[in-house]
Amino acid sequence: MNFTPPMADLDLRRATLCQLLHWLAIGRVQPQPLAEAYQNAIERINPRLNAYVSLTPALMQEQAAAAQHRRRDGVIGRLDGIPLALKDNFDVAGWATRTGLPGRKPPAQEDAHVVARLRASGAVLIGKTQMDEGALGAATDNPHYGPTHNPHRHGYSAGGSSGGAAAAVAAGLAVVAVGSDSLGSIRIPASYSGVYALKPTHGEISARGMTPAARRLDAVGLLARSVDDLTVLLQVLAGYDADDARSRRRRVALSPPDWEPGHLRAGLLPDLAAVGVEPEVIEVFEAALAKLPRELGERRTVDFSDWNFARTRRAGLLLMESEMLSTFAEDLADTEHPVSAHFREMLNYAARKSAADYAVADRVLDAATLKMRRLFAQVDVLVMPTTPQGAFPLGGNAPDSQADLTSFASLAGCPAVSIPMGTLRNGMPIGLQLVGARGSDLRLLELAAVCAATLDAEPAYPVIA
Amino acid sequence: MNFTPPMADLDLRRATLCQLLHWLAIGRVQPQPLAEAYQNAIERINPRLNAYVSLTPALMQEQAAAAQHRRRDGVIGRLDGIPLALKDNFDVAGWATRTGLPGRKPPAQEDAHVVARLRASGAVLIGKTQMDEGALGAATDNPHYGPTHNPHRHGYSAGGSSGGAAAAVAAGLAVVAVGSDSLGSIRIPASYSGVYALKPTHGEISARGMTPAARRLDAVGLLARSVDDLTVLLQVLAGYDADDARSRRRRVALSPPDWEPGHLRAGLLPDLAAVGVEPEVIEVFEAALAKLPRELGERRTVDFSDWNFARTRRAGLLLMESEMLSTFAEDLADTEHPVSAHFREMLNYAARKSAADYAVADRVLDAATLKMRRLFAQVDVLVMPTTPQGAFPLGGNAPDSQADLTSFASLAGCPAVSIPMGTLRNGMPIGLQLVGARGSDLRLLELAAVCAATLDAEPAYPVIA
Repeated sequence: MNFTPPMADLDLRRATLCQLLHWLAIGRVQPQPLAEAYQNAIERINPRLNAYVSLTPALMQEQAAAAQHRRRDGVIGRLDGIPLALKDNFDVAGWATRTGLPGRKPPAQEDAHVVARLRASGAVLIGKTQMDEGALGAATDNPHYGPTHNPHRHGYSAGGSSGGAAAAVAAGLAVVAVGSDSLGSIRIPASYSGVYALKPTHGEISARGMTPAARRLDAVGLLARSVDDLTVLLQVLAGYDADDARSRRRRVALSPPDWEPGHLRAGLLPDLAAVGVEPEVIEVFEAALAKLPRELGERRTVDFSDWNFARTRRAGLLLMESEMLSTFAEDLADTEHPVSAHFREMLNYAARKSAADYAVADRVLDAATLKMRRLFAQVDVLVMPTTPQGAFPLGGNAPDSQADLTSFASLAGCPAVSIPMGTLRNGMPIGLQLVGARGSDLRLLELAAVCAATLDAEPAYPVIA
Repeated sequence: MNFTPPMADLDLRRATLCQLLHWLAIGRVQPQPLAEAYQNAIERINPRLNAYVSLTPALMQEQAAAAQHRRRDGVIGRLDGIPLALKDNFDVAGWATRTGLPGRKPPAQEDAHVVARLRASGAVLIGKTQMDEGALGAATDNPHYGPTHNPHRHGYSAGGSSGGAAAAVAAGLAVVAVGSDSLGSIRIPASYSGVYALKPTHGEISARGMTPAARRLDAVGLLARSVDDLTVLLQVLAGYDADDARSRRRRVALSPPDWEPGHLRAGLLPDLAAVGVEPEVIEVFEAALAKLPRELGERRTVDFSDWNFARTRRAGLLLMESEMLSTFAEDLADTEHPVSAHFREMLNYAARKSAADYAVADRVLDAATLKMRRLFAQVDVLVMPTTPQGAFPLGGNAPDSQADLTSFASLAGCPAVSIPMGTLRNGMPIGLQLVGARGSDLRLLELAAVCAATLDAEPAYPVIA
């Protein structure tokens, strides 16, 4: 006999992954009502938010029922019964992978590596989330499938290119989400939408079955409503994949936490205004740092005078656009379902560039690797705002500098976490970014959890009732 | 009192590195007479062979004298007193790095990583060896500095682009040599000149201070008169370099030997003629295999039907030529010391290619990585001729297919050893190539040593009297 009243839908949609796993474990919550709570909310809220581009409710119910059986029988996966969203650039067998582009896509033959792992863990796939056209952008204002709205304010961008995924997690329409990040595509929407994000060390999570943007930059990224949720999700998804050329065998397990409070050396950029960070963002950042005197230990100003943020971001974009010319060759040739003029124009920029230009841009990534090695000999973590600005109104021009602070970790292949650090005067959230050396993912998450506990007493995400 | 008569110069020049280290250790040989033996031979023979492009006899005598003092005092490096040659695309502080190109080069500011290691080991640098113009070729028929002749037959190519280094080792004008290999540049001259070569796993030896050809393909390569010499040299040179973005920390030490005779699975290509190997080379190869029934264990035919050797070689060349357009921008613009028309034409090929073409070519390297992983799940080692043909006469056209059998290991980043396997009807040597999985360098050398002991009772190299 169970005298506990059923959980309210809103509680289920506000809960973190770790909280839900606990409730599922003790039988306080069952997979099917959990799925229904999310499904009902999606039905009501998604038409206005536009976080999901495709939903398969019948399949979701089926998966939830199977999870409920497994939970009853005691043989369960790590995420059994957890409703989870997937960006629309991952293959799910039998579903189309649109990657934000128009046109009829044949259904994918095979699950992406992460999808296979999620299935094996018992997760319940809700559907696929909105993204920028071809993942080339950071606004999720898709010309074919419409814009995703920021859950904090309708008419504002949720960031991109994983904007639908971030909005779904923030609005309580998914417990966690899996997206991709090549120059900041998981961290920028996390910053704008007030959720938590991890871009892991490159090669730790297989990108097989994810539409490639630029393979040297591509990372599977994670979105959640707490840092601990990111850690759980990372441990489910990380691991060697012989069929992904960029996947790496680890020397040792991802480094466990080993920083003592007060002994950390935190690296800070000397002048955020000089690299284009808005004054209001600097204010919130400095207020956040002031709240973390012990957590961040000794502050050291690091030298970035040899690093041109705009130029290096441009190099990264050239690699993406050049690869996309072949990845999306069919889409570019499809006159029945034409890509947008803007997308074509961006790729045409690369089409006018030579193989020598590509080689020069590619060398910037080697320079980033060397810079990273030197930096992390001096400091344990690099701390900066995730984005130079907060969310902007949809329909206008997206700021050029959106990815300037996130691109460094992408070029260098090192892990980066974004956590909400406060609110701008217009009420919109803004993220704090922690960047660590390659392989330091777990240490970085541990530090982020300590910082988040101090910074974010109240959830930053506005689960929509 | 020492009653042993002094060693004959020719014995010193025929000896392997390991033999010389033994003689030096027991005092049978001293660094100064050893240096003199090599220096006298170089003076006499190099004008005709043209293996060296620059020599610094005074400096060499100084180094040999210092080595002799150290040997006397008992504080010695691993290679103390060993006369060694260096390809002219490695920086030596105070020397020009010509990389086979004309024009006055300012002296290098710093030693290349391998040069610093060689100095620390007490090696005596003899001078810099001939190479193809810009390392783009496999003939060492340099338009500015003349051709290097094959020590086995004057007027024949020594192979390239490390042809001078291979000829010096074969002719007894250097004990060992350090060169570079991006598509086969160390293994091709080893095959044509009858010496032993190793291209290690990418990232194991730092390429800092080596003129880049294509960084994803570039490897420091080693040439010697025995397999054991390669092992000694590898252990002196391998190691992590924080200042080389491609340098890797090892998970474990390079795998030690662990193959049992008879339990090896050796992979063979199904049809060598179909991939352009000359009939006579196939004959020598099959005769060599017949001599190694136990050494190579179980033979398995591996599937290469999905691999187009010519197309993938072309992809590798595009990466090299594209990077060279920026690496050699100054040389290309230098009208006083013009590069050759042939070199300019090859680079112009890349200049007409787009960034998207580069991205497509770069993906071939990922495909090679996946192919390698699948192959080495089925077999322990891949065995094939090093080159589809033997040395060809200088002055004519070099065969297009020279690097077809070596390029796979370069594209996949895995180690490859070349050992002499026999003689063609014209008396010229030809190499056997063993290719292993990444990190299996020491295992591969162990196997190569066992095979070499059977195949090559008499030295294949023609130390010139």
